[in-house]
Amino acid sequence: MRLEPAEARRLAAAADHAVLATIGPDGRPDLVPACLAIDDDVVGIPIDRVKPKASSSLQRERNVERDPRASLLLERWDAADWSRLWWVRLELERSSQDAAVVARLEALLRRRYPQYATEPFVSILTFRILRVSGWAATPPTT
Amino acid sequence: MRLEPAEARRLAAAADHAVLATIGPDGRPDLVPACLAIDDDVVGIPIDRVKPKASSSLQRERNVERDPRASLLLERWDAADWSRLWWVRLELERSSQDAAVVARLEALLRRRYPQYATEPFVSILTFRILRVSGWAATPPTT
Repeated sequence: MRLEPAEARRLAAAADHAVLATIGPDGRPDLVPACLAIDDDVVGIPIDRVKPKASSSLQRERNVERDPRASLLLERWDAADWSRLWWVRLELERSSQDAAVVARLEALLRRRYPQYATEPFVSILTFRILRVSGWAATPPTT
Repeated sequence: MRLEPAEARRLAAAADHAVLATIGPDGRPDLVPACLAIDDDVVGIPIDRVKPKASSSLQRERNVERDPRASLLLERWDAADWSRLWWVRLELERSSQDAAVVARLEALLRRRYPQYATEPFVSILTFRILRVSGWAATPPTT
């Protein structure tokens, strides 16, 4: 079943994990797993300090400087029970945000991921949500 | 830690779930969750018959006809324990395969996903693996 936009947004806002696709220098999709927080129409993706992740983070930042478009997939996978599957797709555009929005996103991220207490993120990439779509095998309960 | 290509391939071959990115008509990454099987240098992605997934499948097929490049992300997410995280990224190119390879991929898919016994996939999209990279927080054990 196709998800109503409001339902898709609700699932996206509750999800603690996503896959972010930016556009690489040659036009190929560049995929990375991502933590996230959503505040209304804005998605915040933390940029980690951890070394081996840092080069990916940098690549991601360079990509959205070159082309501000990105896509995000959030989903539930359950190998055993496909009746529980759902996914939500967000079309995004890189967009700077004022300090109040960034502060709210930072607070959301710290609340959601206790790991950032010991390994703080360096900054947040912010995106505006342009379009939401989604699908579920059955009406999702979470 | 960056994963050695052999280790990244081992993790990818064992993974039962991935996110596939193809290139949409406007160049934006088009993301879908995907089941998969890997046979040596070839990835097979089943095309489902199920109606609401069918339109996504069609879009995906149209995308790779237009531009054969795709990317695949496989990963382990664990909200509670980030020391268990890993991800593997495959750069792919759409590539037809001979009947023997397709038959092996079909057998792998049927073995891996018992769901296809009652809801058979319609066909398989095949891709050649061009490049493998990956990262793990600690040496992965599965």
